[in-house]
This record gives sequence, structure tokens and C-alpha cells, in this order.
Amino acid sequence: MPQISTRGLEMPSSPIRKLAPLADAARREGVKVYHLNIGQPDLPTPEKALDAVRHIERKTLEYSPSEGFLSLRTKLCGYYKGFGIDVSEDDIIITAGGSEAILLSFLACMNPGDEMIMVEPGYANYISFAVTAGIRVRTVQSRIEDGFALPPSEAFEEVITPRTRAILLCNPGNPTGVVYSPAELQKIKELVRKYDLYLFSDEVYREFVYTDEPYLSALSLGLDEQAILIDSVSKRYSECGIRIGMIVTHNRLVRDTVMKYCQARLSPPLLGQIVAEASIEGTEKYLADSYREYKERRDFFIKGLNSIPGVFSPMPHGAFYTVASLPVADAEDFCRWCLTDFRLDGETVMMAPAAGFYRNPDLGRNQVRLAYVLKKEDLQRSLMLLRAALKAYNRR
Amino acid sequence: MPQISTRGLEMPSSPIRKLAPLADAARREGVKVYHLNIGQPDLPTPEKALDAVRHIERKTLEYSPSEGFLSLRTKLCGYYKGFGIDVSEDDIIITAGGSEAILLSFLACMNPGDEMIMVEPGYANYISFAVTAGIRVRTVQSRIEDGFALPPSEAFEEVITPRTRAILLCNPGNPTGVVYSPAELQKIKELVRKYDLYLFSDEVYREFVYTDEPYLSALSLGLDEQAILIDSVSKRYSECGIRIGMIVTHNRLVRDTVMKYCQARLSPPLLGQIVAEASIEGTEKYLADSYREYKERRDFFIKGLNSIPGVFSPMPHGAFYTVASLPVADAEDFCRWCLTDFRLDGETVMMAPAAGFYRNPDLGRNQVRLAYVLKKEDLQRSLMLLRAALKAYNRR
Repeated sequence: MPQISTRGLEMPSSPIRKLAPLADAARREGVKVYHLNIGQPDLPTPEKALDAVRHIERKTLEYSPSEGFLSLRTKLCGYYKGFGIDVSEDDIIITAGGSEAILLSFLACMNPGDEMIMVEPGYANYISFAVTAGIRVRTVQSRIEDGFALPPSEAFEEVITPRTRAILLCNPGNPTGVVYSPAELQKIKELVRKYDLYLFSDEVYREFVYTDEPYLSALSLGLDEQAILIDSVSKRYSECGIRIGMIVTHNRLVRDTVMKYCQARLSPPLLGQIVAEASIEGTEKYLADSYREYKERRDFFIKGLNSIPGVFSPMPHGAFYTVASLPVADAEDFCRWCLTDFRLDGETVMMAPAAGFYRNPDLGRNQVRLAYVLKKEDLQRSLMLLRAALKAYNRR
Repeated sequence: MPQISTRGLEMPSSPIRKLAPLADAARREGVKVYHLNIGQPDLPTPEKALDAVRHIERKTLEYSPSEGFLSLRTKLCGYYKGFGIDVSEDDIIITAGGSEAILLSFLACMNPGDEMIMVEPGYANYISFAVTAGIRVRTVQSRIEDGFALPPSEAFEEVITPRTRAILLCNPGNPTGVVYSPAELQKIKELVRKYDLYLFSDEVYREFVYTDEPYLSALSLGLDEQAILIDSVSKRYSECGIRIGMIVTHNRLVRDTVMKYCQARLSPPLLGQIVAEASIEGTEKYLADSYREYKERRDFFIKGLNSIPGVFSPMPHGAFYTVASLPVADAEDFCRWCLTDFRLDGETVMMAPAAGFYRNPDLGRNQVRLAYVLKKEDLQRSLMLLRAALKAYNRR
């Protein structure tokens, strides 16, 4: 029998999804599982976005343009303008979720064997897409004790080599909820300029920044052609399933190259584009309500976490995640055990072991990533379950 | 400024879509363009599939499972059964169109530098995905004079090297409309067995076979774990835009490896899955009507083509394409000229130059790929335009 590819063997399993079969098994037993493991908001999608697809008048669901509908890209220009990001329709390419935006950016900008620097802990799937594209990932460490602040420039310079082609940021950050300050971004800009790098900036949580400092996009740093924005409508309108993301850049050459990949895969999802387009305008109140809701959840959830003996979470300033340390040696074993063994009144809690968000296998072993995407009662119940599970686990 | 990747530079432009800007420009002038260049059927999507999305009751458009909905995979098992293909839900992974199915199969089964054999002319995007995955494509030539029949086994053996890992077939074939006979497939089976290869079989045009011979899927050849079926609902239900395809294989290891890629990109399009699922059952009459329609178009269109002086098209036995030779030296130049210069009563015709479907730059220079996806009046008008354009072009 022919073999599997080496890169396929090297592909990491998703730390967010790899325990899913255990959760499925628990559910089949009738156990209720609270999902803190995945950034799947429970908020409704905007009603006007759902209506757009309910009232679809097309007779044939045909291919859309490889770069996505012009009407959608026009509305996005207006949306970005509200954040001081000045782009034209030609600067935007619609992709199958932020996921495809990441992969295609990597493929267009870097060769196999090239290196990219990211902060760890970082979104695990960046590493999967880097493996897919044959890119070597070098990491600089942020620390839970510092609230996962941007590591100093020297830490980046230590891992820069002649093969380094890019720095990748997630801002606001998944999995940590960190938001980089204008001063921190200025340091990144200097590095990117000094070493002639690309800056890939994943800003899908832009709407969820809970500090009073002005939020700065990578496209507002004056980096021009070196900045590549990764974006998605998934989180801000609670429509993760439609798979609509985007690459936004002033770099013509990158855009033209990405377009060759886009033409090969023909087009982004048609129905998702209809939903996304209807989400952009007239949803100011929806976004304000979502923001308030997440901020309340954050305040409630982080306080609750830190009140559990041995648990520590810094205060995240953006997105809807936190990385917390637990009083266990092996958080992955604990997460599994919660799904296979722990039950309280027929319920349990699912978390993502944080080790999968680190490149260094020694780091984050006692940490988990938690998403506060459930309503407050459910978060409260999850906190109770976590408290009881830790007690029972450490007493075994 | 940092550079573009070498692989990005090597990515071919789509021969189907690269002339699109010229067509856009013509349209802006008010010219009506008949699209024979792209396999975008003009048939309506089944009404019950459209209704499924019109009556969507979900409040949140959330992530679906990375492998796709179980209910969709269950219905697909029933569908395949009708073709004598015996698979279970676990054998099926839902992808973002057949396009993603191709890319993920390549990534999971082959390493960079490995070789894959395909027949030329072949679907151009196979080469794009091979470049993406770092795979070297070797080709064996089929000839227009032979109706693009499968080349003899010796031709395959001539290009097999120690790095050969797979043979890729498209059956029924895009761009030629060829359908391989059971005897031809038997030869492929022998090669695949003898050299321990994967057989990737793209069968998205399964419903459109106009011969009386029984149609044989690669999954019915007794190849077990060596056969990987690439499929899509796009063409059979005229819903190309929803981006729903699938990888079907009995090979557990391939499935598990593909799943790691699927988890990284989170999930296939949610709304597309709802449409696809509603398309599978209760559409027997729809499929029978589509079949009859395409068969009539084929008979009409191929006869019309061959009646134009200097034009030759073999009779395609499946799909809805043909590759025809034209009385011009450079078909790409002719196709461009049709979009930029030729007008008849404010109309022109768009075709895909066939050179882009060949790997060998000397082949297919005078050929075009034509899709008979328009209604008969439009095909008739397209034929008239082609006849007039050839006359005018050769008289310049």
C-alpha cells in the first residue's frame, strides 16, 4: 500500500478539535458538555444577514468571481474606513474563511524552507498552515506572568536568520486575548522595516478590544506593501460557518499571486458572501450589544477563574479567550479526564489544552485555553464544573 | 520590499479565467459575451435545494464538523449505492468544493518532489494544485485524432520513475469529455497495482455519460486502499457556487491525514452543505432532465462545430466539454482577439485556449476547450459567432 506523505504525518492535530471524539462519546452517554474549547460564539447571527439568504432570488447558485463579489468588497471598504483603514476594492480578496486567507498568504509570500516568526502561545492552526506550506516557524515566548505582552525586540532578533521572511501577529490575540499597544506595534514595524519582512496580521477580533487605548491595525502602521491583513466576518457577526474571510493588502504583487491560487480553487462560497454582505451595514447596534455582552462575560469569567484555588488567568484585553494555568501537571490529561470520567449531575466541561498553542513542548503543560463564548449562566456552571473537576482530579 | 515566493511565480494562471478581464472590458462596452469558456451550467439549481436554504431555521450560522455533517454523508452513501459504490459515512470527508478535495488529497498522499502522472490535455487546475503541493506532474498524451482515448500502458510506464506516487484520472473527462471504458480502467488498475500507486479519480461528471457502456468508478475497481475518489455536487445539481465537494476513500490512513488538514481549516461551508443535502434525494427527475438536456446540446453543438470550415471536434462521450481544433496557429491569440476586437451585432464569444490544459508547450496551440453549458439558442448563436470570427480573423 502506498504511504502517507511525511508532511501529512508532521501535521499537528488541532488542540481545539482533537478531543472532539471524547466529547461526542460523552454526549452519546447523555452527558451535557459545556464547550469552552472552541471560539464558537453562542450569539445569534444578525437577523438581516439570515434574511438575506432566506430571501434569495437566484435560480442558479453559480460560481462567484475568484476574488469575491465586488459589492461585498465595496461594503468592506466602508467598514474598514470606520477603523481608519484606507483600502480600495482591489486591495481585498475574499477567501473561504480566515483559514484560507492565512494559507494563501503563506503560499504567495514564502518558499518552502523559509522562516516565519510568531509569538507563542499562538493560534495552533498557523503552525498547521505553515507545515502545509513548508514554512519553518520560529517562536518568541510571551509569558502568562506578563499577561502575554509582546516579547522585547531582542527576542525577535535572536531568532531572525537569513531565511526569515515574515512576522505573524494575532491582534487581538487568540489564544491569550492580548491586545498590542501602539508602542508595541511600533517596535514590530521597526523590525519589519529593518529586516525587510512581511507582517501578517490576523485581526479577526478587531471588534472586541476592551481597553481605552486606540486600536491600531497593521495596515495603519505606514508599512505599505509589507503589511498583509488577515480578516474574517466569522467572529464579529457570529457566522463562523459561512466561511468568509479576506486578505487585504496594498501589495499588488502579493494580490496578483494570491489570485492565481484563488483562480485555481475557482471561487469563495457564494451563499456565505450573501450573508457577509448583509452583515456589514446596519449592524452597529448588533456589534455594540455583542461587545457589551462579551465584556461582561469576560469580567465575570476571569474573576470566577481566579477565585478557583490554584487557577490563574491574566485579564485579557481583547477577543474572547484566555489562557489560564491550572493546578495540574498535565492539562491535556486533565481535559481528557473531564470528558471521559468526570460528571457532576450529568454534566462536564470541555477545554483546549494549551500545550498545542506552544511550539516548545516544555511550555504551557499546565495551561488551558478557554473561550468565554457561552451565556453567563453557562459560564457560571462551567466554572463550577471546573472547580469540582480539579478537586476530584487532584484527589484521585 | 520582500519578494513573492518562487512557487507563487510558478503558479500557472487559469486558462479558464485568465481572459476574464478582457471579457469584463467587453461587457463594459455593452458587448454581449457568450461564455463557452467555463463549466458554469445555466440550468437552475433544484428548487428543493434552494428551498432548504430559504427556510433555514438556525439562529446562529456556526461551524459545522470538520468532516462535514453526518446527515449529508449518510445521504451521499445512498447516492453512491445507486452507482454500485459501497461506502460508509466514515469513508467520506466534505470539502470546500472538489478543488479542496484535490489539494488535500495531494497534500496527504505525496511529498514535495514526488511525481504524479496525468493525461494531457487535463484539467488545468490539477497542475495548480500540484504546484501548490510541490508535486511534479508528468504527462502522457492523448490525441484529438483518437478522440482523446486513454494512452497505452506503455506510455504510462515510460514516465514512471521511483518518485512516481500516483496516477490522476478525470473520468468523465474535463476538458475533453472522454469516458474511459472498463477495459481502459482495467489497464490503469494493473499499473496502479504493479507500481504501488495511488489512483486519484475525479468523477464529478459521473451523471453525464452518454454511452451505453456501464460506467465504472475507481472505487468499483477492487483497488481498495489505493483508490481516492474526488467528487463534487457542483455540476450535477448546477450549484457550483456553494463549494461542496468530497473525498471518498476506504483508506483509513489517508482519511485520518486529510482530517488533520480539515481541522486546521475548521469546517466546510455550512450553507452549502444544507443545499447539497437537500439536492441528493428526490431529484431523480431533475437529473434525468439535465441529462437529456446536455445530451441534446452535445449532439447539436458538436455537429455545428464540425460544420465550420477547418474546425474539428471529436464526439465527447461525457461531461459537457469538448476540445476542438481551429484553423488558426495560435488559439490563445484568437480567443483574445474575439474579446478585444471581434463584434457581430454587438456580440462575441469567449473560449478557453486549450494550451493551458497541456503541460507540453508545443501541444494544443490550435485548440480550444468549449463548454456546452448554454441553452440551445445561445449555443447556436455562439456557433455563428465562432464561424464569423474565424473568417474575419483569418482574413485580417
